[in-house]
Amino acid sequence: MNIIPIDDPGDPRVAAYLDIRERDLVGRHGRFVAEGKVVLDLLLSAGRFAAESALILENRLAGLQPILHKAPSDFPVYVAAGEVMDRIAGFHMHRGILAIGMRGDPAPAELLLQGLPRHALAVVLVGISNHDNMGAIFRNAAAFGADAVLLDRTCCDPLYRKAIRISVGAALKVPFASFDDTAAFTATLDRLGFSQFALSPRGTTDIRAAQHSARLALYLGTEGEGLPPDLLTRLHTVRIAMAEGFDSLNVAAASAIALHHFSAR
Amino acid sequence: MNIIPIDDPGDPRVAAYLDIRERDLVGRHGRFVAEGKVVLDLLLSAGRFAAESALILENRLAGLQPILHKAPSDFPVYVAAGEVMDRIAGFHMHRGILAIGMRGDPAPAELLLQGLPRHALAVVLVGISNHDNMGAIFRNAAAFGADAVLLDRTCCDPLYRKAIRISVGAALKVPFASFDDTAAFTATLDRLGFSQFALSPRGTTDIRAAQHSARLALYLGTEGEGLPPDLLTRLHTVRIAMAEGFDSLNVAAASAIALHHFSAR
Repeated sequence: MNIIPIDDPGDPRVAAYLDIRERDLVGRHGRFVAEGKVVLDLLLSAGRFAAESALILENRLAGLQPILHKAPSDFPVYVAAGEVMDRIAGFHMHRGILAIGMRGDPAPAELLLQGLPRHALAVVLVGISNHDNMGAIFRNAAAFGADAVLLDRTCCDPLYRKAIRISVGAALKVPFASFDDTAAFTATLDRLGFSQFALSPRGTTDIRAAQHSARLALYLGTEGEGLPPDLLTRLHTVRIAMAEGFDSLNVAAASAIALHHFSAR
Repeated sequence: MNIIPIDDPGDPRVAAYLDIRERDLVGRHGRFVAEGKVVLDLLLSAGRFAAESALILENRLAGLQPILHKAPSDFPVYVAAGEVMDRIAGFHMHRGILAIGMRGDPAPAELLLQGLPRHALAVVLVGISNHDNMGAIFRNAAAFGADAVLLDRTCCDPLYRKAIRISVGAALKVPFASFDDTAAFTATLDRLGFSQFALSPRGTTDIRAAQHSARLALYLGTEGEGLPPDLLTRLHTVRIAMAEGFDSLNVAAASAIALHHFSAR
């Protein structure tokens, strides 16, 4: 471990951590911010993304040794006192654990799909624009063993700081990729032998009766508008039965129910 | 409808709306704040809580007529321009729809239980301290037709502004009550003929195999520590099967899966 004390908030070595919240909004040139113990652990152990460095509050360092030792021996661990860390981050960092990860080159969705095993569960997201929901869906995808998450271009970024935190690191573990053309993507899934189910309040089949299959794709849309009608006509539609007068679940809650159903072997 | 224009942020008639966020933390002497169109609608139509007044951004008033007409004709509807409303609330109120509700006297949990029908689904919360989770659990409780939510004294307040918002108003609709002594409460449920299930990662029965019964109580605990061991030994324990290496779902996601299971007729 390469421990580097930082006394000056302006030290160029911690420039990637400056004004964390402001830079959530403008992006980070191929980097993302991971925060908290569990997320740091997943970043260093899942191996899906390279970690560039960590910035740790000095009194948290001892407790993090087992996790930090999962990084290469030359991995820079910047260590700062509370006041310095708060001035770097631009707000009070009570957790005291930050790391920078590298996004790497995004994989095309088709390539990700082609690498999936014969038994595979894929989650397809269309228009999920809320980071809380995005993070929660990734957490559920990991909990129920989904093999991949595929996102259309109108979805928000799973590597946004808050989405990673809400996912409890699952966004750093479950492989994901984006696609441009939903119709072409649906045709690819078809060709690869995926049964394709779309969750919709007006779905024709109760999810309890939805058949499992070796390769299965579950489509989830936004809460307000749901999945586009032209997509619904091309897929099997499933609904979650609700109490009378209710037709709306949070999309993350719906994903939990549907993934739990389809994860049964 | 009793429309009252407000030009002065210091007008004593809108004192209940002053510094909304600050007062989230210190309480409101028997009142709560409802915000947004759907929540206002539920407040005025569910009839569970009395509404004291509404504060509406002037350009939202026309669109809210059908909802506001559900209130008594003398119900005060304060109307303000954006700048005045922001100064009252203490932050930028882009939704422009606020209302004050009255908590009324809290019902004892035993009384609420005694009034439940022969077929009843009760949700029992122990130590749920996060308002997002509280709101999401209420939303799921409403979606799956739960008849009541019972809270131990360590739970947070379902009528906290953000909890109501996340519940999409379900906290104003699903009856709830608090209990002091969990052991005595469990005995009461027993006496009233409730089958009692506790959700736990180490539950003995897979939720998919959990038997339905006419009267059923589902216990949910905190994410970190879960339900207290002495409670688990007294109840049927059920688990949600997860992918290998995973043993933690968000409690709201877990509530969605369990309530969906037990709501099936």
